[in-house]
Amino acid sequence: MYSVQELAQLLDVRVDPSLSLDITGVAPIEEAQAGDLTFLANPKYIQKVEGCKAGAILVSPKFEGKLPIPALYTSNPYLAFARAIELFYSKPLPPRGIHPTAVIGQGCTLGKDISIGAYVVLGNHVTIGDSVTIHPHCVLYDRAVLGSGCLVHSHVVVRENVQIGQRVILQNGAVIGADGFGFAPVGDGSYHKILQVGTVILGDDVEVQSLSSVDRGTLEATTIGHGTKIDNLVQIGHGCKVGKDTVICGQVALAGSTIVGDRVVLAGQSGVSGHLTIGDNVIAASGTGITESIPKGKVIAGYPAVEVEVWRRYVTQFKNLPELSKRVRRLERALEIKKQENQNSGDV
Amino acid sequence: MYSVQELAQLLDVRVDPSLSLDITGVAPIEEAQAGDLTFLANPKYIQKVEGCKAGAILVSPKFEGKLPIPALYTSNPYLAFARAIELFYSKPLPPRGIHPTAVIGQGCTLGKDISIGAYVVLGNHVTIGDSVTIHPHCVLYDRAVLGSGCLVHSHVVVRENVQIGQRVILQNGAVIGADGFGFAPVGDGSYHKILQVGTVILGDDVEVQSLSSVDRGTLEATTIGHGTKIDNLVQIGHGCKVGKDTVICGQVALAGSTIVGDRVVLAGQSGVSGHLTIGDNVIAASGTGITESIPKGKVIAGYPAVEVEVWRRYVTQFKNLPELSKRVRRLERALEIKKQENQNSGDV
Amino acid sequence: MYSVQELAQLLDVRVDPSLSLDITGVAPIEEAQAGDLTFLANPKYIQKVEGCKAGAILVSPKFEGKLPIPALYTSNPYLAFARAIELFYSKPLPPRGIHPTAVIGQGCTLGKDISIGAYVVLGNHVTIGDSVTIHPHCVLYDRAVLGSGCLVHSHVVVRENVQIGQRVILQNGAVIGADGFGFAPVGDGSYHKILQVGTVILGDDVEVQSLSSVDRGTLEATTIGHGTKIDNLVQIGHGCKVGKDTVICGQVALAGSTIVGDRVVLAGQSGVSGHLTIGDNVIAASGTGITESIPKGKVIAGYPAVEVEVWRRYVTQFKNLPELSKRVRRLERALEIKKQENQNSGDV
Repeated sequence: MYSVQELAQLLDVRVDPSLSLDITGVAPIEEAQAGDLTFLANPKYIQKVEGCKAGAILVSPKFEGKLPIPALYTSNPYLAFARAIELFYSKPLPPRGIHPTAVIGQGCTLGKDISIGAYVVLGNHVTIGDSVTIHPHCVLYDRAVLGSGCLVHSHVVVRENVQIGQRVILQNGAVIGADGFGFAPVGDGSYHKILQVGTVILGDDVEVQSLSSVDRGTLEATTIGHGTKIDNLVQIGHGCKVGKDTVICGQVALAGSTIVGDRVVLAGQSGVSGHLTIGDNVIAASGTGITESIPKGKVIAGYPAVEVEVWRRYVTQFKNLPELSKRVRRLERALEIKKQENQNSGDV
Repeated sequence: MYSVQELAQLLDVRVDPSLSLDITGVAPIEEAQAGDLTFLANPKYIQKVEGCKAGAILVSPKFEGKLPIPALYTSNPYLAFARAIELFYSKPLPPRGIHPTAVIGQGCTLGKDISIGAYVVLGNHVTIGDSVTIHPHCVLYDRAVLGSGCLVHSHVVVRENVQIGQRVILQNGAVIGADGFGFAPVGDGSYHKILQVGTVILGDDVEVQSLSSVDRGTLEATTIGHGTKIDNLVQIGHGCKVGKDTVICGQVALAGSTIVGDRVVLAGQSGVSGHLTIGDNVIAASGTGITESIPKGKVIAGYPAVEVEVWRRYVTQFKNLPELSKRVRRLERALEIKKQENQNSGDV
Repeated sequence: MYSVQELAQLLDVRVDPSLSLDITGVAPIEEAQAGDLTFLANPKYIQKVEGCKAGAILVSPKFEGKLPIPALYTSNPYLAFARAIELFYSKPLPPRGIHPTAVIGQGCTLGKDISIGAYVVLGNHVTIGDSVTIHPHCVLYDRAVLGSGCLVHSHVVVRENVQIGQRVILQNGAVIGADGFGFAPVGDGSYHKILQVGTVILGDDVEVQSLSSVDRGTLEATTIGHGTKIDNLVQIGHGCKVGKDTVICGQVALAGSTIVGDRVVLAGQSGVSGHLTIGDNVIAASGTGITESIPKGKVIAGYPAVEVEVWRRYVTQFKNLPELSKRVRRLERALEIKKQENQNSGDV
């Protein structure tokens, strides 16, 4: 429990200094009860404030004096709310130390204040930074490197030589550095596996969520830039270079050797073919199929991908197609009739 | 081996009481041999009965007296066949008891007649109901709850506080309760992780198949209703509410906070954007991209999703597009000629 | 380090016998430095040879005497390069033997020269061929069979009765033989699980990459032919029969009971509905949605899938749709004017 004045100070937001109120929890606007702090980030949901029972609301200063609920003002209510959650909830870390069942290879370098869970297996010459937490059942192959502050959930795999930056979060079952999909056609229809001897490098503050796979490069490194967030069940092909602060949503697939810029957003189930370049700040709608390089800043949709306004025009045209077809038929009939009329008049 | 009379009784189906025959196995109609029981569920495959070698067939009573094979009559031959499989095959459960290598946390509550396999790790205060089977290498985080009769295959993860109902089946590598994909933009292009402190609640008789991920809610619970079946490699985003007896096929993705009704069918690779409502009994064809809420009972297809008849019309129209384009060109020429004729006649 | 003459002999390629040069590594054409061997497989990248710093290049004999870099001639430069990588890099296998923490069931048959890693669990009556390597944390259920020379990465699951051929590679987290997605509608909206008592058979030289799932058949076997390669996050439904030397790229899904021929290529995120037949040598572009059987040799794209030239024509027509719509409007106006002119002239 915090007084609203304490909370404003902790969240670095502004509040009427005369306001006196205790905040006992956080909740989304539809579910908030008396005592809860909530937030309004998108002004288009302003009507939801009407029936809202929250004790207080985080909003933009432009709503000052316009809301029926006590307000805390900040230019970024969503971020302030995210921080408020941290004041009311904490995820206790597992106990520090190395579980007796963990298998630690030869020549490993282990930082301070680490937690290595039951049945974790570290290969040889693995490096674990300070304050790292590794949940049970993770396997790190030889020479894997985990930077300080990483949080690794159960059943994660980090393959040989993979380098992971600081404060990286890997959710359950993520696989970092499995072999790329590289095979040379032998000529008789069969394939010869191409040894995948490159690696993967994840920057600082990356998160890879559950059951996603980032493949190692054939000879080079697959790289993911600082701050990039990867959702569940994503496939990053071998040799891809993904920039910083990019968001890759659920079930997205990047084929091999594709370059993705900084601050790109690839929405759910979109796909990018191999050897393309996606510029900075590109946004791809869900399900977009990208088969050509995209210049920076474009907002795209559809398969094959086009600018989103073009895609919307297509969709409208699809709807009109049956009608368009009928109109052409009508024109043909009209012209046919006219032709006959002309012929008839010529007969006279 | 069962006599056909015994079998009819066990399956609660009707058979000519004078029929005498031994049934030694079960097989699909194309592969059945003498002694096998088979079934015909869909009347459109009736011609397959001709060459069928099965000893007996489960069919609807409306085929009485019309088939060349001894028949067992039931209004639901497919269900009766499913039950017949259980008479001829059994999947023996692993030995009861707790494997000596299992790591059991503090304060766990363990039911009767359970099987906990090698290297299973239970966190603290985990609750396991009666008759639960947990295969090797599963990890249940603190305070996870598994209802009685659950069957959990190897490498499954059940995260902290997740509540799982009775008789739930989790196939290999399923991840229940990993963090949702929630990040607040900081304003400089980077993101601040939003603590995911909600949970997941799975109803009774749910099945989640291999390598699917059901994310925990940010503050609330992601819920899956009784009897819902989820195929492989499915992504259920944080805060989704999925109804009862819904079928979610392979590689389907639900983005966050989406509501899916009861008895919905989402066919393979379809996707649903966030914050939508999909009504009861909706059926989405494979690959459908749902970007708007769908009223109950609709059958939809395409991207963006439209009613399936509309989609079929689109597809037909796509086929006609090159021809339509030519017809318009022809009309333009005809009109051009007419114009010239008129001008010529005007010149006279 | 190899002399270029040694290398030519080891790779079975032709080189000017007077050429004297040491090769110290391998690299792609854009990154190769002095001392590196590189390759040119696709003549359309010939201009990249200009600025290339490689010590030598593997190329087709048709470039003889035309390149500014010392050349090694072969009809298959990509394959020769794949073999060259193996000369410069090796992936050392884990130590032979059975890790003391491995749990081996009753009645298992273990070959010679095997490596079974930490915390591997073998059920009862499992068969492991000679020279098999199983990384930590794999689980093989009862009666699973792994042929000689297999390489199985951590967290792989091989379910009961599954038969795996020789030299098969399974990347991390692959699941072979989990239950198929089979449920019989009971009639009240709920489903009755159909026991999945079939199995999976993988041919020799198959590779299944990370986090892919090949489901067991209901009564029959799901089969994958010799030499077929399956990328990450792929779903193979129960009862599918996939041929030889077929390539199934990332996030492809096959629904149940589908037959896929030999030397088929299914590019990323494509999907195939159930009970279809895809002929030999079919190539499906990324994102193709296959809802009908496809005769052998077809190259297809789009959803629903059509021949790729047809698809390209559709895409062109989509682009022209707004213009086509305007042209029809123009025709309607022209005809309207004509009609009025005629009426006016009739009035006179």
